[in-house]
Amino acid sequence: MKLNTKDTIVALATAHGTSAIAVIRLCGDNSISIAEKHFYNKKNNTPKSLQKVKSHSSVFGLYIHNNVIIDEVLVSVFKQPNTYTGNNIVEISCHGSPFIIQKLIQLFLNDGARMANPGEFTMRAFLNGKLDLSQAEAVADLIASNSAVSHQVAMQQMRGGFSNKIKLLRENLINFASLIELELDFSEEDVEFANRNDLKKLINTILNVINKLINSFELGNVIKNGIPVAIVGKPNAGKSTLLNILLEDDRAIVSEIPGTTRDTIEDEITIDGVLFRFIDTAGIRTTDDIIEQIGVNKAFDAIKKSAIIIYLFDSHELSSGDLKIELNKLNEHIGNSQLLVVANKMDVEGENTLRKEFFEFKNMIFISAKENKNINLLKEKLVSLFDTRTVDATDTIVTNARHADALQKAYNALLKVNEGLDKQIVGDILALDIKYALNELSNITGQVVANDLLESIFTKFCIGK
Amino acid sequence: MKLNTKDTIVALATAHGTSAIAVIRLCGDNSISIAEKHFYNKKNNTPKSLQKVKSHSSVFGLYIHNNVIIDEVLVSVFKQPNTYTGNNIVEISCHGSPFIIQKLIQLFLNDGARMANPGEFTMRAFLNGKLDLSQAEAVADLIASNSAVSHQVAMQQMRGGFSNKIKLLRENLINFASLIELELDFSEEDVEFANRNDLKKLINTILNVINKLINSFELGNVIKNGIPVAIVGKPNAGKSTLLNILLEDDRAIVSEIPGTTRDTIEDEITIDGVLFRFIDTAGIRTTDDIIEQIGVNKAFDAIKKSAIIIYLFDSHELSSGDLKIELNKLNEHIGNSQLLVVANKMDVEGENTLRKEFFEFKNMIFISAKENKNINLLKEKLVSLFDTRTVDATDTIVTNARHADALQKAYNALLKVNEGLDKQIVGDILALDIKYALNELSNITGQVVANDLLESIFTKFCIGK
Repeated sequence: MKLNTKDTIVALATAHGTSAIAVIRLCGDNSISIAEKHFYNKKNNTPKSLQKVKSHSSVFGLYIHNNVIIDEVLVSVFKQPNTYTGNNIVEISCHGSPFIIQKLIQLFLNDGARMANPGEFTMRAFLNGKLDLSQAEAVADLIASNSAVSHQVAMQQMRGGFSNKIKLLRENLINFASLIELELDFSEEDVEFANRNDLKKLINTILNVINKLINSFELGNVIKNGIPVAIVGKPNAGKSTLLNILLEDDRAIVSEIPGTTRDTIEDEITIDGVLFRFIDTAGIRTTDDIIEQIGVNKAFDAIKKSAIIIYLFDSHELSSGDLKIELNKLNEHIGNSQLLVVANKMDVEGENTLRKEFFEFKNMIFISAKENKNINLLKEKLVSLFDTRTVDATDTIVTNARHADALQKAYNALLKVNEGLDKQIVGDILALDIKYALNELSNITGQVVANDLLESIFTKFCIGK
Repeated sequence: MKLNTKDTIVALATAHGTSAIAVIRLCGDNSISIAEKHFYNKKNNTPKSLQKVKSHSSVFGLYIHNNVIIDEVLVSVFKQPNTYTGNNIVEISCHGSPFIIQKLIQLFLNDGARMANPGEFTMRAFLNGKLDLSQAEAVADLIASNSAVSHQVAMQQMRGGFSNKIKLLRENLINFASLIELELDFSEEDVEFANRNDLKKLINTILNVINKLINSFELGNVIKNGIPVAIVGKPNAGKSTLLNILLEDDRAIVSEIPGTTRDTIEDEITIDGVLFRFIDTAGIRTTDDIIEQIGVNKAFDAIKKSAIIIYLFDSHELSSGDLKIELNKLNEHIGNSQLLVVANKMDVEGENTLRKEFFEFKNMIFISAKENKNINLLKEKLVSLFDTRTVDATDTIVTNARHADALQKAYNALLKVNEGLDKQIVGDILALDIKYALNELSNITGQVVANDLLESIFTKFCIGK
C-alpha cells in the first residue's frame, strides 16, 4: 500500500457551529506556503511570510482575498517532523463563524490544498510512524469517550499500553517459534534442545494471555458503549417518570459546565463515571402484560440485549403474591442479565407498611420516581451491579471489535499449533499457523511484518526438511 | 465602574460537540500558574513549568490529576500585554471530547480559575483598551455573520471603521462647540468671531452625517438579520414546494464544505451573498382567501414585517382577471414592501399559451417549483430587488439598534442646539445639549468622556456669563 502523505489536506478541526474561535488545520509539505498565500500583516496589509516562523509558535495576521478581509486570525506553525502527523502542520485559529470557516477553507482549497478524508490526519500519523494502528484507533475512542472508565481505557490504548502487550505477545511467539525449530529440526537425531514440557508451557502461556484479552472484550464493549439497561414493568408502574428523572438529574449535572451539553445523546446517563445506556422498551411499555408479549416483539430483544433489567412495579397495585408470579415469568427470559426489582410510588403510603409485605424480597429498592426519593440509592445499586470502576487503569482491556476478532483468529491458529505439537506435525505446517497468528497480531498494531524478518525465521525453520 | 480583570477566567472557546480538537481558554494574571499546576512532560510524567515558555509559542504535555491522565495536549502561552484581552492568556488544545473538556475545565476551576461569563473575554479586551465598545460588539456580529455583506459590515466595524466615523463626528462637534463659544461669548461686543452662516453650515453638516448613519440602520438591520420575505398565495399554489426547493438548493451548496452545516437555521437562504429570511406565513397558508384573512391574524404581521412579498399562484387555476382582483386586494396591505408576482406550475401546459394571458403583468416570473424550472431566475430577481451587494465595504452602515438609538438621541439634541442658535439662546443651555450629544456619541464607542476634557470645553464656554 503506497499512500500519498505529501499532498496538503485541510479540514475544520474543531466542532461545527458558531463559537468564539474555530481551528482550521492544514497538513502536508505545502501547508506553510498555502497558508501564507493570502496572509497579510494586520497593521499595514502587506504580505506576511510564514516561512521563518519558528515551529510551535503563532503569529497574528489577516486573510485577505480580492481586497476583502476574510478574518483576523492567529496562525500556528508546526514544522516536520516533530508534529502530530509528522508532516508540516499549520493551524489557523479564526473567529468561530461558519461563514468565515467556509471562506477560509475555500481559499486554501483554491490555493492547492484538498479536503481531508475522515481520520486522514491520524492516518498520516500512523503512516509516518507517529502512532501504531491500535493507538490511532484509540484516538477516535478517546474523543468519543463519555465516562471515566471509557476515557481511561482509550487513553491507555492511545499511549501504547495495548500495543506493548501485543508486542510482548509477538516476541513470545517468535521465541516459541525458534524453540520448536530446534526441537523439530533435530528431533530425528534424538537430541533434546528444548524440553517438550517447556514448549507446551510456553504456548499455553501465550494462549492464556490471548484468551484473557479476548474475554476482556465483553467488558471493553460495555465500557465503550455503555451498560445496556432495560426498565420493564406494567403500564403506569412509572417507567417513563423514572427514566426521565434519571436522565434529568444527569443532564443537570452535565450542564453545569458549559461546553459539555450532550444534546444528541438520548437515554444515556453516566453515574459515578459509569455509562448506562437505556434500551428502548417501548414494546414493553405499551402492552398490558409484559410477559405475554415477550418473545413476540422487540421488547424481547431489549431484555436479551440488557446487562441489567430494572423491573419496576407500583407497590400499591401489586401484592407480594402477584409480584412473585410476575418475577417467576420474567426470570425465564432474562438469561444472564442481572435483575433489579424496584418498588415505585412509596410516596403514596407510609413506607413502613409496605416494607413488611415485600420484606421477603431481598435487595428490593423502594423509590418514589415522582418525588425523587431514593433515586440515589437506585443509582448506587446500578453502579454496584456493574462496578467498572474497579477496572485497573493498567489492565489491558480490548474495546475494539477488530482487535477482538484478530485475537480470536490468532488464538485459533495457535490452538492448531498446540495440537500439531502433540502430533509431531512437520515444522512447515506449524510454520504456516505460527505465521498466520503473527500476522493477526501484527494487524492489530498495523505493524508491517517485514517479510525478510519472517523469512529469516521460517526459512531457517525448515532447513534440511 | 470598577471591573476586576485580574482574576482568571476559563471557558471552552470552540464550539460544543465531539471533534478532533477543542480549545479551552484561560485569561487573567494567574493563567500560566493555573495552567501548569497539573501539567506534566509527556515522556516521563515529571512536572512541566510554563513560566519560561515564550509568548505566542506552544508546548506539548499531559494533564494528570490523581494519577489519571486526563489528556495529551498542546498548550499555547500568550503573555500580557500583547494578547487579545491584554491579560495573560493560555490556550489548551485538547482532544475534542466533551468528557475531557469537562474534566480539564473542572481541574482549572479547582486550581483557582472561575467560569467566564458570556462575552467576558471580549469585555476584558474592551476594558483593557484593546477594542472600543462598538468594535467589541462587532466581534459578536462577525461570528454570527452568515452572508458576504453582513460579514463585511461586521469586519469593517470590528476593525474600527465605524469608530473612526464617530470619532470624527465628536471632533467636529467639539470644534463646533468652540466656535459658538466665541460667537456667544462676545456677541454683546458685536465682534463677529465666527460667521453665523459658517456655524449653521457646520451644524447642518454634522446633522446630515448623523442622519445618514441613522438611515443606514434600516439597511444595516436587513444585512444583519436578513431580508424578510413572505410567500403568500392560495392553498395549493405550491408555496411549501417553492420554499423547500429554495432551501434545499441552498443547503446543498452549503454542505459541500464540511463544517458549515447550519442545522439550527430554518427558512433562511443566502443567495449571492445576500441573506433572505422567510417569515412564517402559516396563517396565510391555511386559509382559502388570503385577503379575507389579512388583518385578523398573524399573516397580516408577516406581510407587514416583510420587505419582499412573493405572491405565488397556480397559473392554471387563476385567470388573468382573477389575478387582477387578488392583486388589487393584496396591494392595499403591502405598504412599502416590494411585490413579486410568480406564476407557478408552468410545467402543466406549454408556457407559450400561458404567457399570452398574463402578458400584461410586467415583471411576472413563470416557474415550476415541482420541476425546479426558472428557480434561478426567481433568485436573481430576489437579489436584484434588494441588492445589498452594491454596499461599499468602506460605507459605514449602522447594524446595531443600540447605536441607532444613541445616534437618534444625539441628532435630537443637536436639532435643539440648531434651534437655540437661531433664537440666540444663552450658551449654558446650548452647552447642555451639546454635552448630551457628545455623551451619546461616546456611548457608542464606550469612550469615557473625560470629565476634565468636557469641563475644559464648557467652563471656558461660560466665562463671564
